[in-house]
Amino acid sequence: MSNFEITAQNRVARVPDRGAYDKETIYPIIDEALICHVGLVQDGQPFVIPTLHARQDDTLLLHGATTSRLMKYAQSGQPLCVTITLVDSLVLARSVFHHSMNYRSAVLFGRGRLVEQEDEKLRALQAFTEHILPGRWDDARPPNAVEMKATAVVAMPIELASAKIRTGPPGDDDEDLTLPVWAGLLPIEQQFSPPENAPDLSDNIPVPAYVSDYLKNRNG
Amino acid sequence: MSNFEITAQNRVARVPDRGAYDKETIYPIIDEALICHVGLVQDGQPFVIPTLHARQDDTLLLHGATTSRLMKYAQSGQPLCVTITLVDSLVLARSVFHHSMNYRSAVLFGRGRLVEQEDEKLRALQAFTEHILPGRWDDARPPNAVEMKATAVVAMPIELASAKIRTGPPGDDDEDLTLPVWAGLLPIEQQFSPPENAPDLSDNIPVPAYVSDYLKNRNG
Repeated sequence: MSNFEITAQNRVARVPDRGAYDKETIYPIIDEALICHVGLVQDGQPFVIPTLHARQDDTLLLHGATTSRLMKYAQSGQPLCVTITLVDSLVLARSVFHHSMNYRSAVLFGRGRLVEQEDEKLRALQAFTEHILPGRWDDARPPNAVEMKATAVVAMPIELASAKIRTGPPGDDDEDLTLPVWAGLLPIEQQFSPPENAPDLSDNIPVPAYVSDYLKNRNG
Repeated sequence: MSNFEITAQNRVARVPDRGAYDKETIYPIIDEALICHVGLVQDGQPFVIPTLHARQDDTLLLHGATTSRLMKYAQSGQPLCVTITLVDSLVLARSVFHHSMNYRSAVLFGRGRLVEQEDEKLRALQAFTEHILPGRWDDARPPNAVEMKATAVVAMPIELASAKIRTGPPGDDDEDLTLPVWAGLLPIEQQFSPPENAPDLSDNIPVPAYVSDYLKNRNG
């Protein structure tokens, strides 16, 4: 088991029992999520920007248009915070106070560097494409030279990280257990509906097997 | 129609066609989302923290333990950024380059103040509870004096905001349209599974009608 160092920056202060610092807990949250929220600072003003991500070992990858504010900032070497949250259920307690949510979140800290080497950049783009949909990279048309130039990839080695996870039923106080109020969980699932063909799709191109497999896998 | 001012801070720079600045577009995104991501800065380090939210007119509400770092910061009057993102579908283009996601995001800027007046605080807690589940406030046990003290509520008047929205099919280049690659959308739905009773629920307490109605409404 490999743990991140615990510092004032990544320590889960509120409800410390919900905190975790091992990669075995944190990395599956990163890998399951479709998007992340990147935090950055400009002139003292925080910005939080949603974007796609991918992970390669201990490195988080971000990408975007070469000209985008997020990409320019992310490659500047200034501190970043990337947060990923999966919601699992609404927690309905008998008391308003104990209402909550079951969730799995990961907070990652690091500094980005621009990926300039062509091979490394191509492997990163492969990681994004495969993060969205495993099997897609070998099917779709690879990026050409113009597209490679238009796309910036930033690699952020994960320096510090923590997960925070709530599971289980509502935690009502003992004296509330006999109240005539329904209590329990409303589980939330991210479900995929059937694929929708592009309106300009050529005839006779079926939905590929790796898409059907992915939907089956994601929809449990 | 009421629009937010457009400044360098909230202007959607990348793909400006996807930007919107009117409350009629932005507020439904806030209201539909179960959670938000709050951005703050401490000693130049950005932090992004996921939390529940609610909206009252032009004010975003945050709450948490009185002792929490987020609550202490949020009430300090320093600039906040709150981002809310709904993912609608994966966009699979024929080219790797045009892969994308359909989404609706809202980025809100403002400064928080602690809600101290008892009535206002109670109405805010009602807004959180009803945001999680309409009808719940009238059923659950209201907060007592100790719980009111333990909970901090911060009101952030929304000073600047923007939405960014992508809809529609993949945007492949003309010369790629005849490639033998499937293209289209994989629509994503947030679906609720059947309610799970708390293990210590008293016998004969059925799932309330407002819960069933909510699930029907959410699951479309």
